[in-house]
Amino acid sequence: MTQTLGELATRFDADIKGDADCRIQAVASLKSARPGQISFFYDRHYADELARTRASAVILKPEHCDLSPTACLLTENPQLLFARVANLFQQQARVEAGIHRDATVAASAQIDPTASVAARAVIADDVRIGRHVIIGAGCVIGAGSIIDDDSRLVANVSICDNVRIGKRVLVHPGAVIGSDGFGLVNDAGEWLKVPQLGTVSIGNDVEIGANTTIDRGSLDNTVIEDGVKLDNQIQVAHNVYIGAHTAIAGCVGIAGSTRIGRYCAIGGGVGISGHLEIADNVHVTAMSLVTQSITEAGVYSSGTPLQTNSKWRRNFVRFGQLDEMVKRLQKIEKKLNNY
Amino acid sequence: MTQTLGELATRFDADIKGDADCRIQAVASLKSARPGQISFFYDRHYADELARTRASAVILKPEHCDLSPTACLLTENPQLLFARVANLFQQQARVEAGIHRDATVAASAQIDPTASVAARAVIADDVRIGRHVIIGAGCVIGAGSIIDDDSRLVANVSICDNVRIGKRVLVHPGAVIGSDGFGLVNDAGEWLKVPQLGTVSIGNDVEIGANTTIDRGSLDNTVIEDGVKLDNQIQVAHNVYIGAHTAIAGCVGIAGSTRIGRYCAIGGGVGISGHLEIADNVHVTAMSLVTQSITEAGVYSSGTPLQTNSKWRRNFVRFGQLDEMVKRLQKIEKKLNNY
Amino acid sequence: MTQTLGELATRFDADIKGDADCRIQAVASLKSARPGQISFFYDRHYADELARTRASAVILKPEHCDLSPTACLLTENPQLLFARVANLFQQQARVEAGIHRDATVAASAQIDPTASVAARAVIADDVRIGRHVIIGAGCVIGAGSIIDDDSRLVANVSICDNVRIGKRVLVHPGAVIGSDGFGLVNDAGEWLKVPQLGTVSIGNDVEIGANTTIDRGSLDNTVIEDGVKLDNQIQVAHNVYIGAHTAIAGCVGIAGSTRIGRYCAIGGGVGISGHLEIADNVHVTAMSLVTQSITEAGVYSSGTPLQTNSKWRRNFVRFGQLDEMVKRLQKIEKKLNNY
Repeated sequence: MTQTLGELATRFDADIKGDADCRIQAVASLKSARPGQISFFYDRHYADELARTRASAVILKPEHCDLSPTACLLTENPQLLFARVANLFQQQARVEAGIHRDATVAASAQIDPTASVAARAVIADDVRIGRHVIIGAGCVIGAGSIIDDDSRLVANVSICDNVRIGKRVLVHPGAVIGSDGFGLVNDAGEWLKVPQLGTVSIGNDVEIGANTTIDRGSLDNTVIEDGVKLDNQIQVAHNVYIGAHTAIAGCVGIAGSTRIGRYCAIGGGVGISGHLEIADNVHVTAMSLVTQSITEAGVYSSGTPLQTNSKWRRNFVRFGQLDEMVKRLQKIEKKLNNY
Repeated sequence: MTQTLGELATRFDADIKGDADCRIQAVASLKSARPGQISFFYDRHYADELARTRASAVILKPEHCDLSPTACLLTENPQLLFARVANLFQQQARVEAGIHRDATVAASAQIDPTASVAARAVIADDVRIGRHVIIGAGCVIGAGSIIDDDSRLVANVSICDNVRIGKRVLVHPGAVIGSDGFGLVNDAGEWLKVPQLGTVSIGNDVEIGANTTIDRGSLDNTVIEDGVKLDNQIQVAHNVYIGAHTAIAGCVGIAGSTRIGRYCAIGGGVGISGHLEIADNVHVTAMSLVTQSITEAGVYSSGTPLQTNSKWRRNFVRFGQLDEMVKRLQKIEKKLNNY
Repeated sequence: MTQTLGELATRFDADIKGDADCRIQAVASLKSARPGQISFFYDRHYADELARTRASAVILKPEHCDLSPTACLLTENPQLLFARVANLFQQQARVEAGIHRDATVAASAQIDPTASVAARAVIADDVRIGRHVIIGAGCVIGAGSIIDDDSRLVANVSICDNVRIGKRVLVHPGAVIGSDGFGLVNDAGEWLKVPQLGTVSIGNDVEIGANTTIDRGSLDNTVIEDGVKLDNQIQVAHNVYIGAHTAIAGCVGIAGSTRIGRYCAIGGGVGISGHLEIADNVHVTAMSLVTQSITEAGVYSSGTPLQTNSKWRRNFVRFGQLDEMVKRLQKIEKKLNNY
C-alpha cells in the first residue's frame, strides 16, 4: 500500500508542510527510517534524531515544524496520529480461512467458515468460533467456550471450559483464561478445594498479554469489560471485575473479588489485595501495594527510594525504629514545652 | 444429582431449620441462586443479599438463622460445609478413558487403561501414567516422568524429564515443572551453566496454578510435600522444599534452596530469598520481602503504606534521610540532657 | 563415561590429594554421593556433610583439604571447577535428528538435516533452523524466524514472527519471544493499539527461563546481547536492550525502552521503569524498584525490613508521617538554637 502525504493529510484531517506528493509506504522510527517511510517526533530530547532522519515525512506538532529536515504532517498529538497511520500501513500476515488438517476440532464445535484454525489447535465440544476469528497454533479451547467475531488467539493460548470472549479480542501466547480460582477452605489444617463454578466473561476490544492468567469465578463470573488492556504476566484472580478502558501494565497481581473502576491505569508490578473497590480514573504507580479500597480518582503510590546498598542498609534499619523515633520526638517536645 | 435438604443434613451431620424435603440440585451465590439451589452466608456485610436470595436453602451459622428468608442448613463453619456440598454436586466433565488418536505417545510409555490422554498431548519414553489420570490437550510429559493415580494436567502443561507427581495432583494450564534451575558460576565475567541434575518430587493432593514454574534441583531434588496449594504465576527455584499443607498465593517468588515449613500461608507477590529456613505456621502478608530465616510461627510483613502520590513523594524522600534523622534526634537528646 | 581423578586433574589443570587412580563416573552432592561420584565443598557450614560424604573424591580449596575423608581435587574456585566437571559428565538425552511425523512444518521452512523437530511442534513459513538445533514438543515458531546452530527450545515455547535467535541459546518451556509490546495511545479515554513493527534479536549463549516473556520492539528491536541469562517469569518489554553477560533472576519486570548495561546482576522480583539507562556492572538487590537511571557501577537497593506484623503496623503508619516528623525535628532544633 502506498499513500501520498496529501492523501494521508486528507484521510486524517491534518495539515501539511512540504511536498504533498511524496509517497509513503510504511512507518519507521526517526533513526531507522528510509526514504518512502514516515516517522514521528514529539519530544525535543530527540531533536538530533529528527535533524538526521532519512524519513520522507515526519508527524509532529506545528511548533516543532522548523526542526524537521523533511516534509511534515502537523498535529497536536503526534503519537496518536502516528498510531493511526501505522495501523493503516500495517501488513496483516495473510491468514487463510479454514481448519488446518493438523488441528483437532470436535464434531459439535461450530466454526464459522471465515475463521482460521491453525495446526495443533484443539477445539473441544460445543465451542463456537465467530467470523474471521484466528485460532493460532497450539491453542486449546475448552468445551462450551465462545470466541466472538474478529478475535485472535496468537499461539499456545489455553482457554478453559465455558469462557466467553467478545469481539476483536487479541490474546497473546501462553495466556490462560478460565483456570480455577485459588478457592480453599481450611479443614483442620488441611485445605479443601472449593469447586470453581463461575466462568470468565471478556468484553470487546480487550487485549490480553503473553502468559497473563485470568481465573474463573468461584460462583459468579470474573469480568473484564470492553476496551481493557492487560500487559504480560498479569494475574487476575477469581471474581475480579475490571471496568472498561482500564490499562494494566506487566506483572500486576489482583486478588479475588476486587473491583477495579473504568479508565484506571495500574503500573507494573502493583499488587492489589482482595475484596477491594477501586474508583474510576485511579492511577497506581509501579510496584505499589494496595491494601484498602480507593474511593477517589487520583494518583497513588507506595514504596521506598532506590539507594546505594550501603546507605539503604542504614535507613532500612531505621524503618524498624520509626515508631520508637516518634516517641523520642514526643518526649523531647514535652520536655521543651516544660522549659 | 438431587438431594433433599434432609439428606444433606444427614450426610454432613448438620441441623436444619425449615423444609427438610426441599430438593437441591446445585450450589450458587446468594445473588445468582435460583430455586433448587443452595447458597451460603457467613458475614453480616452480605445481609441484604441473604434477605433477597431466591435460593431454596442457605448454609449459615445458627446465630444468623433468623436473617434467612428460606430453609437453612446450620453449621459453625458455613464456608467449609458449603465447599463440601459444592464438591458433592460438582459435575465432573465426563472424560473418556483412552488415548486420543491425535496424541503422540512413545511406545515405551506405560499408560493405565483407565487414564485419558487428550489430543495433541505428547508423552515421551518411559513415562508412567497411573489410574484415572487425565492428561489434557497440548500437555508435554518428558521422558521418565511418573504421574500417579487420579492426577489431572488441564492443558498445555509442560512436565520435563524424570519428574515425579503424586496422587490427586491438579496442575493448571501453562504450568512448567522440572525446568532447569538458574544455576550459574561466574567464569571471568561470563556465566558457566551448572548442569541441573536433580528433579522435582511432588506429593499427593497438591494443586499447582496456571503458569506457575517449579525448577528441578541442581543435584538433589526440589520437593513439594503433600497437600501444598500453589496459586498462579508462582516461581519455585531449584532445591526449594515446601512443607505439607502450606498455601502460597499468586506471583510469589522463592529463591533457591529455601525451606518453607508446614501449614504456612504466603501472601501474593511475596519474595523469599535463597538458602533460608521458614518455620511451620508462618504467615507472610502480601508483597513482603523475606531476606532472613524465620524461626518462630507468627505473622510477618514488610512494605510501606499506599498514599496519594503527592504525600508519598515527600515521605519517600524522607526515607532516604532516616539515618540522618536519628542522628539529629540523638544530638538534640544529648543537648537537652546537658541543660 | 569414566575418568580417573588423575585424568580430571590433568584436563582441568588442578592438583590432587589422595588416590589419582580412583574412578569417577558422575557428580553428586556431598549428602547424596555414592562411591564413583565426585562432589564439592566450599563453605565450612557444610563441614559435617563433608566429613560423612561417601563420594570417591571432593573438589575443594587447598586450605580445606584436611577436612576431607576422601581424595581431593584442589582449586581456588571449587564451584567453578565442579561446574566444569559436571558439564563433562552430563549425559545429554539422545535426540534423534529429523522431523517427527507428528510435527507440522511449512514447505518453505528450511530445517537443517542435523536438527531435530519433535512431535506437535509447528513451524511456519520461511523459518530457518540451523545445525543441531532441537525444537521440543509443542513449540510454535512464527513465520520468518531464525533459530541458529545448537540452540534448543525445550517444550511449548512460543516464538512469534521474524524473531532472530543466536547460537547455543536455551529456551525453557512456556517462554514467549516476540509477543506484541504494550503500545497504546490514548484516544479520548479509549486505547488505540500501536502496531508493534520491530522484532526481537537474541545473541549467542543466552538462556531464557520458563514462562519468561520478551516483547518485540514497536519500531526498532528488543535486543538481548550475547551471554545474557534470564531466569523464569521475567517480563522484558518492547525495545528493552540488555547488555552482554548480564544475569537476571526470576520475576523481574523491565518496562519499555530501558537499556541495561553489561555484566549487571538483577535480583529476583526487581521492577525497572521504562526509558532508563542502567550502567555496566550494576547489582540491584531483590524486589527493589528502579525509577531513575543508574550511572555508576555498584550495589543498589530499596525496600523495608520484614518485621512481625504487630511491630510493622506501627512503623508502617509512621512512614506516612515521615515528612511531618522532619518538620517537628526542625522546629525543635530551631527552638534549641534559640536558647
